[in-house]
Amino acid sequence: MKILVINAGSSSLKYQLIDMTDEHVIAKGNCERIGVGGLITHKTNDITVSYEVEFPTHKEAFLEVVKVLTSGEGKVLDDVSEIGAVGHRVLHGGEFYKVSTLITEEVVKTIEDLSELGPLHNPPQAAAIRACRSVFGEDVPMVAVFDTSFHQTMPEKSYMFGIPYEYYEKYHIRRYGFHGTSHRYVSGHYLEMIGKKEGTKVVVCHLGNGSSITAVKDGKCMDTTMGFTPLDGIIMGTRSGGIDPSVMTYLMNKENLTPDEMSDILNKKSGFLGISGLSSDARDLVNASHEGHHRARLACEIVRYQIKKFIGAYAAAMGGIDAVLFTGGIGENSGELRAEVCEGLEFMGIELDPAENTKRTGTDHKISKEGLPVEVWVIPTNEELAIAQDTKAIVEASR
Amino acid sequence: MKILVINAGSSSLKYQLIDMTDEHVIAKGNCERIGVGGLITHKTNDITVSYEVEFPTHKEAFLEVVKVLTSGEGKVLDDVSEIGAVGHRVLHGGEFYKVSTLITEEVVKTIEDLSELGPLHNPPQAAAIRACRSVFGEDVPMVAVFDTSFHQTMPEKSYMFGIPYEYYEKYHIRRYGFHGTSHRYVSGHYLEMIGKKEGTKVVVCHLGNGSSITAVKDGKCMDTTMGFTPLDGIIMGTRSGGIDPSVMTYLMNKENLTPDEMSDILNKKSGFLGISGLSSDARDLVNASHEGHHRARLACEIVRYQIKKFIGAYAAAMGGIDAVLFTGGIGENSGELRAEVCEGLEFMGIELDPAENTKRTGTDHKISKEGLPVEVWVIPTNEELAIAQDTKAIVEASR
Repeated sequence: MKILVINAGSSSLKYQLIDMTDEHVIAKGNCERIGVGGLITHKTNDITVSYEVEFPTHKEAFLEVVKVLTSGEGKVLDDVSEIGAVGHRVLHGGEFYKVSTLITEEVVKTIEDLSELGPLHNPPQAAAIRACRSVFGEDVPMVAVFDTSFHQTMPEKSYMFGIPYEYYEKYHIRRYGFHGTSHRYVSGHYLEMIGKKEGTKVVVCHLGNGSSITAVKDGKCMDTTMGFTPLDGIIMGTRSGGIDPSVMTYLMNKENLTPDEMSDILNKKSGFLGISGLSSDARDLVNASHEGHHRARLACEIVRYQIKKFIGAYAAAMGGIDAVLFTGGIGENSGELRAEVCEGLEFMGIELDPAENTKRTGTDHKISKEGLPVEVWVIPTNEELAIAQDTKAIVEASR
Repeated sequence: MKILVINAGSSSLKYQLIDMTDEHVIAKGNCERIGVGGLITHKTNDITVSYEVEFPTHKEAFLEVVKVLTSGEGKVLDDVSEIGAVGHRVLHGGEFYKVSTLITEEVVKTIEDLSELGPLHNPPQAAAIRACRSVFGEDVPMVAVFDTSFHQTMPEKSYMFGIPYEYYEKYHIRRYGFHGTSHRYVSGHYLEMIGKKEGTKVVVCHLGNGSSITAVKDGKCMDTTMGFTPLDGIIMGTRSGGIDPSVMTYLMNKENLTPDEMSDILNKKSGFLGISGLSSDARDLVNASHEGHHRARLACEIVRYQIKKFIGAYAAAMGGIDAVLFTGGIGENSGELRAEVCEGLEFMGIELDPAENTKRTGTDHKISKEGLPVEVWVIPTNEELAIAQDTKAIVEASR
């Protein structure tokens, strides 16, 4: 079965076509500037095609994806009917979707209803699902894979905030967690490798432009750093992570900020960028810190210290720890970060092998010393593959 | 030397008179309703005296304290001149005061200047210091002991928030931490008992109506849960502790709340009270949870889980842990809480002795099993004594 994986944003449509016989990527690409112009970039093993084309809505983008997949230089399919199913990444499944689900009209409506919780993502993703249906027709099954669903196993003590309970009842305010597909893929992959699930205690550090850390016990999410939105937890490229709530009310009074302006500062001007005053890109900060830039070094120190503390916190939450898994752009590529995070954790059985830690293999790679109680691995995440695997399983089961 | 310890609020003045020859409390009491009426309650070993008397300002309260100490049924001094020094509790010392300090006019002005950071506490405390000076005269030395000073040894990575750096420069927004006198007293007391400071790693859990947890390495604060204000960290009687910052902007938009209204909800209607809908008192929640009250049980679970996670986080921060010390009203008295917090921490060498943990001795008391790498103790805090000790040391050194 060939599966098309879709990750839609308000003005973009990323896609991957995956052959599930051997899980290899046949082609992938991105439709950009939807609604304000149009640009498609399409890649196969051999060639990259890129051209401008008008995308008034997601529907025209889907039509172009079909065209580029089935004709021209980037052609990889003889006929669109070779696509057996479509898997859609959806940000927010609220408390409704604890696993991925076959998309019906009711599911699309629920995704739309959850727009309050994912205002930037759920509306365009629902629109993309409708556009996809209109292009591919009713006979091509579609599956929704939610960023939140893996975290739905969290116990109440992990997901409830210390605010009046009525806000949970009235607005569904709670910790949802995000990057769930990545945390599930990476932890699941590791547990498959060791052939064990029950009794396992794993911490997954998904570190990229957005970052989250998850405690995975018995293969299920027990706690995670992102919260009601992807703002909570550790500092990120431009996001503050958790801060004393009173900082916000103080700043809003001092600077006469509206809630939306405050939210903008915390989401877009904080984190690495805000602390360093230099860049939101971790690589820039590492370079600048090596050149003695104090605030760049500070941003690096803060994020590493926060990650270290969450590893300790989640070890305590789970009653110990068997493995720490690093993934995401930073997690996979920054040996320096991993070394600093793991330094001093010998007391809980964590110690890196410096030679292994500095290797960049691009594949699953154990970086801890042999014979220790805790294994540390770098495991490249693959959310698209996880979406394709879910889609295949659900479509096959529904037949 | 006899030292008068003062803890002033906007409408109250708590005092303790301590004989430093054997550190025993000669008398203590509270002047209430300052500015709106007046009530003094005065206790000696033998007697409690309580009566109404007009307190237009803190000055009249101080005059009454002198009167009740030196005359009538509660008399404990022949003459006010027996009071060798006065120690004042001050909430916020900002980044200026890293240790307690002899009070000069400049110090009072600085305390007033820091009112922005401690708006509810610093102004009345400065006023009380001035009133005290006018009553006791220039010859009685006074010392300010700050809630924040113990935490001034925190490294930058612990105290900086992930927000734009300019807010630190402009408004001094950072983690200050509070309950410092208690954390210092309890950790210092323990380190004195074991006769060691360098190389020690201790977590102090000060749990009361307000709660904070501190990582103390080599006898110095390395990290603490309270932040810019005493709102941050774990859930408390009516305080939310840390939450996803976006919860606030979401709620403010939804409920049309001003920053001050939002702050009120998080400081006065959240925490135990907000989650349970029942009470801000931990004892009420424990009782209700035993009777099957779901939300009371949830509040208990959340606070215990959060404490457990901070112990793990601080162990990771310090590279291990030698001791966990419980103090404060809840920390000293709730064996059930301590048991649940420490459950599952065997992997890091923590295991309670259930028989010792359920004893209520009211004194320093080891509650962990013998022969384990981590000791767990209940150590009653005594902030007044710590203030008196600082005052004595500073006054003697300044002579």
